[in-house]
Amino acid sequence: MAKKITIYDLAQKLNISPATVSRSLNDHPAISQKTKDKVLSVAKETGYRTNKFAANLSKQKSNTIGVIVPKLNSIFMSTVLSGIEKIANNFGYNLVISQSLESQEKEKLNAKTLFDSGVDALLVSLAYETDDYDHFTTYTDRKIPLLFFDRVCDLPNCPTISIDNEAAGYDATQHLIKNGCQNIVHISGSLKRNVYAGRLEGYKKALYKNKFPVKPENIIESDLNIGQVKEFVARIKASEQKVDGIFVSNDTFAANCIKELIKEGFRIPEDIKVIGFNNDPVSEVISPSLSTIEYPGYKMGILAGQSIISHLSGSINIQSADQILIKHKLIARESTQI
Amino acid sequence: MAKKITIYDLAQKLNISPATVSRSLNDHPAISQKTKDKVLSVAKETGYRTNKFAANLSKQKSNTIGVIVPKLNSIFMSTVLSGIEKIANNFGYNLVISQSLESQEKEKLNAKTLFDSGVDALLVSLAYETDDYDHFTTYTDRKIPLLFFDRVCDLPNCPTISIDNEAAGYDATQHLIKNGCQNIVHISGSLKRNVYAGRLEGYKKALYKNKFPVKPENIIESDLNIGQVKEFVARIKASEQKVDGIFVSNDTFAANCIKELIKEGFRIPEDIKVIGFNNDPVSEVISPSLSTIEYPGYKMGILAGQSIISHLSGSINIQSADQILIKHKLIARESTQI
Repeated sequence: MAKKITIYDLAQKLNISPATVSRSLNDHPAISQKTKDKVLSVAKETGYRTNKFAANLSKQKSNTIGVIVPKLNSIFMSTVLSGIEKIANNFGYNLVISQSLESQEKEKLNAKTLFDSGVDALLVSLAYETDDYDHFTTYTDRKIPLLFFDRVCDLPNCPTISIDNEAAGYDATQHLIKNGCQNIVHISGSLKRNVYAGRLEGYKKALYKNKFPVKPENIIESDLNIGQVKEFVARIKASEQKVDGIFVSNDTFAANCIKELIKEGFRIPEDIKVIGFNNDPVSEVISPSLSTIEYPGYKMGILAGQSIISHLSGSINIQSADQILIKHKLIARESTQI
Repeated sequence: MAKKITIYDLAQKLNISPATVSRSLNDHPAISQKTKDKVLSVAKETGYRTNKFAANLSKQKSNTIGVIVPKLNSIFMSTVLSGIEKIANNFGYNLVISQSLESQEKEKLNAKTLFDSGVDALLVSLAYETDDYDHFTTYTDRKIPLLFFDRVCDLPNCPTISIDNEAAGYDATQHLIKNGCQNIVHISGSLKRNVYAGRLEGYKKALYKNKFPVKPENIIESDLNIGQVKEFVARIKASEQKVDGIFVSNDTFAANCIKELIKEGFRIPEDIKVIGFNNDPVSEVISPSLSTIEYPGYKMGILAGQSIISHLSGSINIQSADQILIKHKLIARESTQI
């Protein structure tokens, strides 16, 4: 890289004092417009770079917000990030984004790296694996705002943004029951995570309410990796009591199940009704189209961004908010209705 | 935020000199392990934060890489980002990610913000709209490494990473012709962008080579917004000469076309054969499954990350590389073969 241009270089070039250069760059009222224009023009010409690092250092602010997501290449997560970025960008914040790749170790490392780079706040959606939260105490101890979204945990003074996963799981299961299903399988992600644990609770609640038994063999905890679809469909095929409904905790897995079930000779929705989760684009494209729960990821991202920035600017104190819930919605399509 | 803890605070607390604190934190050999342990323990206890900003300032390095993508909520882009992040993370770089939302104005603003925050390098995939590149001269003038990926442009000393879009467009069209298509429509994105312009060139080349006429009415430039699928299918339906093949520049639009064409009574692939681009998950889920061109986004992200970091560490000079091409692959599925 070329040698850095400083305000002293500009001062020398313009034959004025460094203080005048500095004031001009900061649009100080005591400096004439003519001088400001001259300084700006030479600054641009020489490639002078406003030293935000130095400025931030003295203000103890970096104007960056750290984000840790489980993985970037998920349509749901990238929709949330798109909302967060929009707000951050509008308010002049930079977004430093990292992924835990579902590993607790990587999440710890990311939290430390972001802490050391001086982020003003941290937004986190937890990895599948994470079951201890000590890596966040460096933030909470220093009162650096920490907000969890989607995959959240219960830490003091850390607000969370999510949907009511239990209510959503209840709605999905109730929808299958209303459409005639009597033996419903639930395919869940890691039950360490609130999102999946909540949806399972909702599934159980709907069964209880309809006086259906909750059978352990009907609850499958998995990592929702589509490599497992074949194995899962084989299990459905082999099950003693005919399965007539499936509630899957994400759309991609659900859509691939439909495809495999059809290949195995099942008619959807006549033989088995299937409902997914998230309302990903894939849910509209699959035939029959997939009933699902709309999880408004973009809206969640916008809200997460707004909350953290309002907190940083002092206009609200999010640490007094405990849980922010956003609305989900059942979307009934062909895969559950004859 | 609480008052920042400095090495002076630690020194006072431990009753040792600030220099000893600093050396302990930097694992200096002259300091005993016992002292180091004591310093580290108090540093942790008080929430002392390694001042990377200050350290970076003196090194004129921020250890951050800026990225501008057209939009975050695209499965292809988030796959590329996932690859870039993996490499950046491995090498201790932070990734500051922003989206242009396909707007030239926003892209300019993002480039400026990232420049001002002192990124060590910039990776860009261009917005639909962009047709002047002056906003990148602040980088090139200061010799800050600038690399374009996927949607690239031709700037001096700025290497690009992409596939050979012309060859890929040729392969897609040739595949349709080989399977019997004689009147092929091409649905393209903005022709300002190399990726779409290249694919169109390949389409034309395949037609020429097979002595088919290139008809302007068969080339549709669009923004590939799925809201336009209905209108486009109506146009196919109304076309004087029967359309028997469609080459679409992305999979999401292609999959939605298939769905709409079937709704309108066309049989795929018997009446019309369809091929997409990217090999997004949607291409496997749609029925019939969608033939497509595999664009290895993750691999591109890995390569972009490795190139820029090797350049920053001085092990290669990417500015001498002009164009880095990665391999695409035709994936033939049900939508093009009877």
